[in-house]
Amino acid sequence: MKSLEEKIVKEGRVLNDNVLKIDGFLNHQIDVKFIEEIGKEFKRIFKDEKVTKILTVEASGISIAYETSKHFDYVPVIFAKKTPANNQDVSVYTTEVYSYTREKIYFITVAKEYLKKEDNVLIIDDFLANGSALNGMLEVCKQAGCNVVGCGVVVEKAFQSGGKEIREKGHNVVALARIKTMSKDKIEFVD
Amino acid sequence: MKSLEEKIVKEGRVLNDNVLKIDGFLNHQIDVKFIEEIGKEFKRIFKDEKVTKILTVEASGISIAYETSKHFDYVPVIFAKKTPANNQDVSVYTTEVYSYTREKIYFITVAKEYLKKEDNVLIIDDFLANGSALNGMLEVCKQAGCNVVGCGVVVEKAFQSGGKEIREKGHNVVALARIKTMSKDKIEFVD
Repeated sequence: MKSLEEKIVKEGRVLNDNVLKIDGFLNHQIDVKFIEEIGKEFKRIFKDEKVTKILTVEASGISIAYETSKHFDYVPVIFAKKTPANNQDVSVYTTEVYSYTREKIYFITVAKEYLKKEDNVLIIDDFLANGSALNGMLEVCKQAGCNVVGCGVVVEKAFQSGGKEIREKGHNVVALARIKTMSKDKIEFVD
Repeated sequence: MKSLEEKIVKEGRVLNDNVLKIDGFLNHQIDVKFIEEIGKEFKRIFKDEKVTKILTVEASGISIAYETSKHFDYVPVIFAKKTPANNQDVSVYTTEVYSYTREKIYFITVAKEYLKKEDNVLIIDDFLANGSALNGMLEVCKQAGCNVVGCGVVVEKAFQSGGKEIREKGHNVVALARIKTMSKDKIEFVD
């Protein structure tokens, strides 16, 4: 998505070889008009899928998932909750996620009543790097026994291995911008 | 907002005298079509205000703030971040918030670059009870020196004191549904 690549180059800030901040339009301040473009792009990509639920994880995924829902007949959006500890609650699906950025473990949970085995789930997230959050959501869907029709992420750090590994497992992972290399001076995208 | 009151009665779950769960359409699963109605209602209420930014707090406020922005010329939405500790970062406005539900203190932060003293801010949140989150956002706006044009909340537990106290300080706080009393059997709204 050319306009996204341009926006990342213009407004993104590379803090180090691993951390790209796009707080100005997605992760802290939200550019609503631009998120509409992202929603349209996910529709174009996944238009042939019969999506019944959109799953994301709090907090940055919510605006994207919300906008995308409008293009899929307003299917319910579910945002997985992040909790510091495994709450042992039998009414939820839950799994451990390791955050490389924060160097700690957290858990994501989804109430069982909102994901059913009949569901066709589109997973949406902001970033894909090591794949830990995405793998967590895939695990939650596996526990629910539902069908994952695809995974749409806004930015993939393609120099990290998450995307490759998840695709090799057979999942349809599409990123709107795929970063090949990045440094404080330059961001290069995969063609 | 009649349709909201009806939805709360139909889909809400009162866990005890203080806790109302509306996870089915706002706090975990999002009913996007219904959030559109909420956005329209906030527009109707605050239409005369010259809003330049919408401020909310992660995570449940995001979808409402995002939708509301569309009615105010797509002004930027900022979601305050919740952090367990005061991070001492001089580039952010920050304040302590006490969560009565979880019985613990957390901090909310907003990067200084996203709130300016020229801004006219509409604050949006899901719940208002003791007013701790709303007071936190008002404090952040005070630190930024910006003008708060109003506070729109989806549900106010009017039997708790937060709303009254914040209105007495002169803020324009509007709740779309105001609960007078609630129990497992019955929810009554303020007329």
